[in-house]
Order: sequence, then structure tokens, then C-alpha cells
Amino acid sequence: MIDPQIEAQLRADAYARALGANIEAIEPGYSRVSLVVTPDMLNFHGITHGGVVFSLADIAFAAAGNSHGQTAVALNVNISFTNATGAGAHLVAEAREVNLGRATGLYEIVVTEREGGQLIAQCLATVYRKREYFGRGV
Amino acid sequence: MIDPQIEAQLRADAYARALGANIEAIEPGYSRVSLVVTPDMLNFHGITHGGVVFSLADIAFAAAGNSHGQTAVALNVNISFTNATGAGAHLVAEAREVNLGRATGLYEIVVTEREGGQLIAQCLATVYRKREYFGRGV
Amino acid sequence: MIDPQIEAQLRADAYARALGANIEAIEPGYSRVSLVVTPDMLNFHGITHGGVVFSLADIAFAAAGNSHGQTAVALNVNISFTNATGAGAHLVAEAREVNLGRATGLYEIVVTEREGGQLIAQCLATVYRKREYFGRGV
Amino acid sequence: MIDPQIEAQLRADAYARALGANIEAIEPGYSRVSLVVTPDMLNFHGITHGGVVFSLADIAFAAAGNSHGQTAVALNVNISFTNATGAGAHLVAEAREVNLGRATGLYEIVVTEREGGQLIAQCLATVYRKREYFGRGV
Repeated sequence: MIDPQIEAQLRADAYARALGANIEAIEPGYSRVSLVVTPDMLNFHGITHGGVVFSLADIAFAAAGNSHGQTAVALNVNISFTNATGAGAHLVAEAREVNLGRATGLYEIVVTEREGGQLIAQCLATVYRKREYFGRGV
Repeated sequence: MIDPQIEAQLRADAYARALGANIEAIEPGYSRVSLVVTPDMLNFHGITHGGVVFSLADIAFAAAGNSHGQTAVALNVNISFTNATGAGAHLVAEAREVNLGRATGLYEIVVTEREGGQLIAQCLATVYRKREYFGRGV
Repeated sequence: MIDPQIEAQLRADAYARALGANIEAIEPGYSRVSLVVTPDMLNFHGITHGGVVFSLADIAFAAAGNSHGQTAVALNVNISFTNATGAGAHLVAEAREVNLGRATGLYEIVVTEREGGQLIAQCLATVYRKREYFGRGV
Repeated sequence: MIDPQIEAQLRADAYARALGANIEAIEPGYSRVSLVVTPDMLNFHGITHGGVVFSLADIAFAAAGNSHGQTAVALNVNISFTNATGAGAHLVAEAREVNLGRATGLYEIVVTEREGGQLIAQCLATVYRKREYFGRGV
């Protein structure tokens, strides 16, 4: 179980709120976040903008990466896009810790469409862990 | 010079407009886009959200990648974050074509802070070029 | 099961042979390859060279990516290194297909140490699939 | 100019020697390394193996990343392949420091064919800088 003080901080994300992202679950080293695509999230081809798909994945990544109460900042994210979606799509991002070192952590984030489970994007992402703590870690 | 019909389509990007991104220049294989960070673009650490920095880079990438009038979709973007910014920062993304093949294209996108020029993030990104055309290409 | 003609071609890899890599298994969309690290595979820090770890992963990636008998060439590989090894380490790379489209495919490759299973590196990698065939695909 | 003690260590790379790589230049934050492709460096398609191209880039990356005399280990390398080569090709990798922080550094590595200068691959790569020193840094 995650410390409530840590969870409260992770949920206080202005951009996640502005996008309408729903932080469904946070556990140590894990999070799941969802989003319904709106018409103002499309690109000039009329499909969901890569920036929106990435943002959803990044919100899940940040929650998982900071879930130990140690300040973690993103160093690198690699995202591969596999299938396009459009307005109304219900996207779900799940972030899982693959490796946790003293100074860095590695995460895999998978974005799927809730209905049907089609893969939309997959990420491999690294955090740098500062020697700063904002909660009672796990 | 870019074909006006192509440029018009590249500028009709709902998400870029919703974010307040300013598409400053589009040339064949190149684009420059800027954004002023607002308080609702911050993460729970109080710094500019990685999703916003990526989105700015991605808007520039999409404009450069589609600047030939051939439909290009993002396959992969790798982003490395080097320095944090906060509300009020004026970010500029420049996308440059590194390689253009028949079926794929490779782009480098550099995000800097306008004042001072500090590097905020750098990307290496690949498009897949469909056999579809929406303008008179170059 | 994989077509024997395809498997024979995938095994005819000069560089894999020169490195001493052992292609243990190839199935449609999957492969497993192993390697014992020798002293001439170390870097100037005395640990296994990143180029060797990548090469092992890339051999597995190429086998999985070409396992359908359609010529697939690497577009992009992202590799994250998590733990160092040294001479004598027995490394195993497993490549799994995450997504298979008409023109591209996405693969995850995980490199572990056989004894103990510690994660050494993880990759996310994209192929471009040419319209060329060298065997009876699956 | 680089400290001779640092340069001597960077050149003592067993795998670079085994591959026949020629470390042509090392400066603070920069290096250039070349390699002539031999028949045992080809893959089953008969083109230069991705592992060899990566290894060349990684040798240049490691030299540039460690050129300050502070131990730097690779966290992440993203490589995009743009053009194929074959036996006899003379490949050159140049690594340049894009950002140097206290704990991490970001590098761009460009691999070209010496004759003609065609782009073969491009990388974006991150090191973690340990608090260990093996020379008088710059």
C-alpha cells in the first residue's frame, strides 16, 4: 500500500487535471491512469495527438516513478506508437517498474484502448532519483 | 517555400491550438513552434510537465514530418529531458529533417528556453510515410 | 512452428557466429539467444561492453522480426542498461513481438543473466517490413 | 586538450580493439572513432549488422562521456538506422556532448560512411556520472 501523504502529492498534478486524466490506481512502482479523448486533443490528421498519448503515459510514469516518496525526475522516455485512435476513445496507461536502482529507475508504460484492449503505444522510460524525499517511502 | 495548401493543413491542429502553441515557421523538412508555459501545465513537483514539453516538440515534429505533403505518422519518439522550467517560461521547439527515405523519415527536435537558449529537451523521432498525399510536395 | 527454410536463413548470421552467440530458439514473433562474455568483450571500465549487450539483443530482435519470412530491417532500437556484468557472465536475450502491422513491427527485448535472472538491459525496437519474402511465413 | 592519463584509460578498451575500431580523436566532450566493416560483421541479410554499427557508436559515446575523467556509465541509448552498408564500408562515428549536468550527461552520436558522408545511423544517449574519478578532469 502506498503512503497517503505520497499519494496526495502525486494526485496534485495541474496538467493531469487540465487534461481530464483520471488517476485510477497508484501502488509502489505501479500506476494506472485513464483519459477520454476529446475533439480538442486531435491533430491535423484528425487522430489523437501524439502529445496527448505521451502525456497520458507520462502521468502514469511520474506517479509510478515517484511512488516511493523519493523525488524522481524523468531523464528519458522512448515512445512507440502502434495504432491510431480518435475522439471518444477511452485510453488507459499502465506504468510498471522494471528496475529500481539507488540513483535511477526504469519503467515500462503500456497505453491501450479500454474497449478491446488494442495497443496504442508503448514506452520505456528512465528516472533520476534525487536525494530528496516527500513522504514515507516503501 | 512550402505549398500554402500544405501549410494550411499543418496549422489546423486542434491540440496545438488548445495548448496555445504558436507555429512560427514551416519549411520543407523544418518547423519552429513556441509556447508560453501556464500554471495549468505544471506537474506535482511544480515544474513544467514532461507531457507539455513533449507535446511542443511533437507539434514541431509533425509539421516538419508532413511538410512534403505526404501523410507521415509518428512511429517512435525518443525524448531526453535536460533542464526543468516553470510557469512563464517561453519554450521554443525546432524540428529538422535528418534523413528522408521513401517510406520513413528521421527528425531531430531541440527544445530550448527562448531567453538564454538553455537546452530543455532533445528528441530523435521517426515517421512512417504513407502513400497518401494532401498537397503538392517538395 | 517456424518454417525450416526461414529458420535456416536466420541462423546464417556471420556476426552472431563471430561473437559466439547461441540462437537457442526461434518461433514466429519470438527468439531467445545467449552468449558467454569473454575478456575481449569488456570495455575500459572492465565491464561487459554496451556494444556486446546491444549486439546480443539485436541478434534476438532480428530473428524475431524476420521470423515471418518477410524481410524486416531495424529502424530504431532504444536500449536501457540496468546492471553491469563481467567476463564469464552468461547473458540471455529474449525478443517478443508486441505489435505486428503491415509495414512495421514492434518488439521488446529483455537481456538477463542466466544465473539469478538479474535484468541487464531492456529494449524497445521497431522494424520496417519490406515487401520482400524469403520463406513461407506464418 | 584532454589529460593524457584519461586518454590512455579510454583507449584501453578490449572490445574496441577486438572489433578493429580506430579511436581517431578524443577531446573533452567529443570523440571520433572509425571502423572498416569486415565480412564477419554482416547479418543474415548480408548487410552490416546493427550490433556493429551500434558498437562503433557506443565506443565513441563512451570515450566522449568519460572524457572528463569522471566515471560515466551508459543509462540509455536510442539508435535510428537510416542506410545500410556492406563489407568494406569505412564507417565513422562522432560523439558530441549536448548537455552536461552534475549527475548525467547527454550525447549525440552520428555514424556516417567516410566516402560520401551518407548518414548510416544517429543516436541520442545518456550517461549517469558516478562520483568516481580516474583522471584530472576538464
